[in-house]
Amino acid sequence: MDNFQFYSPTEFVFGKETENESGRLVKKYGGSKVLIHYGGGSAVKSGLLDRVKASLEKEGIGYVLLGGVKPNPRDTKIYEGIELCRKENVDFILCVGGGSVIDSAKGIAIGVLYDGDFWDFYGTGKKVERALPIGTVLTIAAAGSEGSPGSVVTKEEGMLKRDVGSDLLRPKFSILNPELTETLPAYQTACGATDIMAHVFERYFTNTEEVEISDRLCEAVLMTMIKETPRAIADPHNYQARANIMWAGTVAHNDIVGVGRSQDWNSHGIEHELSGLYDCAHGAGLAVIMPSWMEFVYKHNIMRFAQMAVRIWGCPMNFENPEETALKGIACFRRFLHDIGMPINFEELGAKEEDIPVLVEKFGLGDGKTGGFVPLSSDDVAEIYRIAVKASI
Amino acid sequence: MDNFQFYSPTEFVFGKETENESGRLVKKYGGSKVLIHYGGGSAVKSGLLDRVKASLEKEGIGYVLLGGVKPNPRDTKIYEGIELCRKENVDFILCVGGGSVIDSAKGIAIGVLYDGDFWDFYGTGKKVERALPIGTVLTIAAAGSEGSPGSVVTKEEGMLKRDVGSDLLRPKFSILNPELTETLPAYQTACGATDIMAHVFERYFTNTEEVEISDRLCEAVLMTMIKETPRAIADPHNYQARANIMWAGTVAHNDIVGVGRSQDWNSHGIEHELSGLYDCAHGAGLAVIMPSWMEFVYKHNIMRFAQMAVRIWGCPMNFENPEETALKGIACFRRFLHDIGMPINFEELGAKEEDIPVLVEKFGLGDGKTGGFVPLSSDDVAEIYRIAVKASI
Repeated sequence: MDNFQFYSPTEFVFGKETENESGRLVKKYGGSKVLIHYGGGSAVKSGLLDRVKASLEKEGIGYVLLGGVKPNPRDTKIYEGIELCRKENVDFILCVGGGSVIDSAKGIAIGVLYDGDFWDFYGTGKKVERALPIGTVLTIAAAGSEGSPGSVVTKEEGMLKRDVGSDLLRPKFSILNPELTETLPAYQTACGATDIMAHVFERYFTNTEEVEISDRLCEAVLMTMIKETPRAIADPHNYQARANIMWAGTVAHNDIVGVGRSQDWNSHGIEHELSGLYDCAHGAGLAVIMPSWMEFVYKHNIMRFAQMAVRIWGCPMNFENPEETALKGIACFRRFLHDIGMPINFEELGAKEEDIPVLVEKFGLGDGKTGGFVPLSSDDVAEIYRIAVKASI
Repeated sequence: MDNFQFYSPTEFVFGKETENESGRLVKKYGGSKVLIHYGGGSAVKSGLLDRVKASLEKEGIGYVLLGGVKPNPRDTKIYEGIELCRKENVDFILCVGGGSVIDSAKGIAIGVLYDGDFWDFYGTGKKVERALPIGTVLTIAAAGSEGSPGSVVTKEEGMLKRDVGSDLLRPKFSILNPELTETLPAYQTACGATDIMAHVFERYFTNTEEVEISDRLCEAVLMTMIKETPRAIADPHNYQARANIMWAGTVAHNDIVGVGRSQDWNSHGIEHELSGLYDCAHGAGLAVIMPSWMEFVYKHNIMRFAQMAVRIWGCPMNFENPEETALKGIACFRRFLHDIGMPINFEELGAKEEDIPVLVEKFGLGDGKTGGFVPLSSDDVAEIYRIAVKASI
């Protein structure tokens, strides 16, 4: 196990009707003038936004509204938010939505207190020194941004998708009401589940040895997702399945399952170019990329993939031929993704083989390599896209 | 799954040589005059205390010392600490030790800022309104107090062991260096491991249904302990085993594995009377009590005990007779405790059957009942003690 720091100070308030705690929590964390940041019309139509507003009003907290955040959130909306916050002297951002809204809010939180362009921090490693506090009312279990220090934003000019991370971006509180996810279509539910599982796999495939505790915690989250996701898709109003998925999504990405070990994150990077170019759902892109990545890298550590197959997917271990077990685990994963309605190849995603050179170019490795489990070159990335073109169950 | 709040703001700094971060972290969390609170001579002899002092001095932070905390920490030492902190204008308490030192520090932290007797808060449910900030340098993986909101203290007069809990008592930071545990004798290592496993079992046995995510997280910690504890006992200097145990101990008790579900905690209560009366190690007492408690209550939910047997201990499921599987799981637990050198009955612990009425009397149930999984009466508690008298492998 490697040395590590773990710091997850977010207060999570989980369960039915908890959105009515919004006002109390904003007040507790010092907000007096709030930007309510949200996405499309569902938060309006469902009455959620009204309940949040009522909760703020009850505490005498003022607010302004900024909706219209799109999936794969854009820099343009963030510039709009920064201007609005400055004009209205906003001191707290309350996100009502999913990962896109939260990631957009984190961009605004950085930008309001920074003299230059908030984009300076994305993809550059520049250290965030100040940020407005944020809170969240989560409406989809997926990105884990409600408990994470990260934000991923797309620059419209060139459709560049880049990220930033800082403990200052961890929400002060996150309200997690699984009821709010019961109206999600099956496709979005499955995209979210795929993202959650990918967050764990990015950490599970490590070169650090002797990490039994985090291995087991990773497996705990994955086994939960394997049990609960099909139940939530079969019956969208299954509160218990939604609840287990929602908390699994937070645990998957606040890094409790990833501390003390090297992590990979190439599947996320390789996928970001797909959702950047085609504006597809991040989870759908991951369903296409992650098993393909596994097929490309598994020989690097066959026994780790066999461990995944046996412990997570319940495959019998083939002691004479562990490689067969490893491959069975990967096949189980892809079959699971297919069964929950995810695309598993380029065609099903709406991606084109002839775009591979463009995707690789945008990935921007040049002659370099990246990745914590198996460092990949541009040629390797191209090969993973090619595996993804042809993937089938 | 039940509604819940989860808040674990402690900054954990984990790994080799991390005690040298003490000064930086005290400064970060606003300490300028520190009480260094510790136990026996081992922190002195090993040079650990000198390294911590040097780290504080490097940051220009003043300190006073108070050692001599005993296992099952006493109110008398806490009164001494409160007086010292007031006299020396201490604004931060740094614990160098295990759960006893940390729990003692939490008592001092409450008392310094309270006009009355700190004991007012123990066992009464009285709400803590203010407390000095504390940090820890942990030297034994066991109590989980380094990340928990709780403190357990023994009042010398009458040897009453009582507890308090408040988010204000969560340490600001905890330094976890597994190297510091390499000098622990096998017996103490095993006592710590038993305590860690008990913290999980108290949460695992629940009446809340549909808690897959926390079930799986519980099992993750328990399987880690089953793998790593015998390795640490066989080779005390196995850093990796020590590291996995240490982090498992924190995860076991910061409540990440226990949210959203009813919890039991009767084994802890029943044990506290043993360590209160005989001053034995808490972990050793738990090794005697917890399997006995399991034998007394398992019929309340045979399938949950069968799940423990299959998932944690790897027992084959007897589908025709799940009760047999359940009992096998309990037998595996007791055998494991015996194998790591723990006592499993009254005689091995040094307890006496004839004291059972005294133990039950001190437990103080009267005509009432307590416990979140199976509510127990005084008669039930007496029966569990009697099972523990005769327990064998």
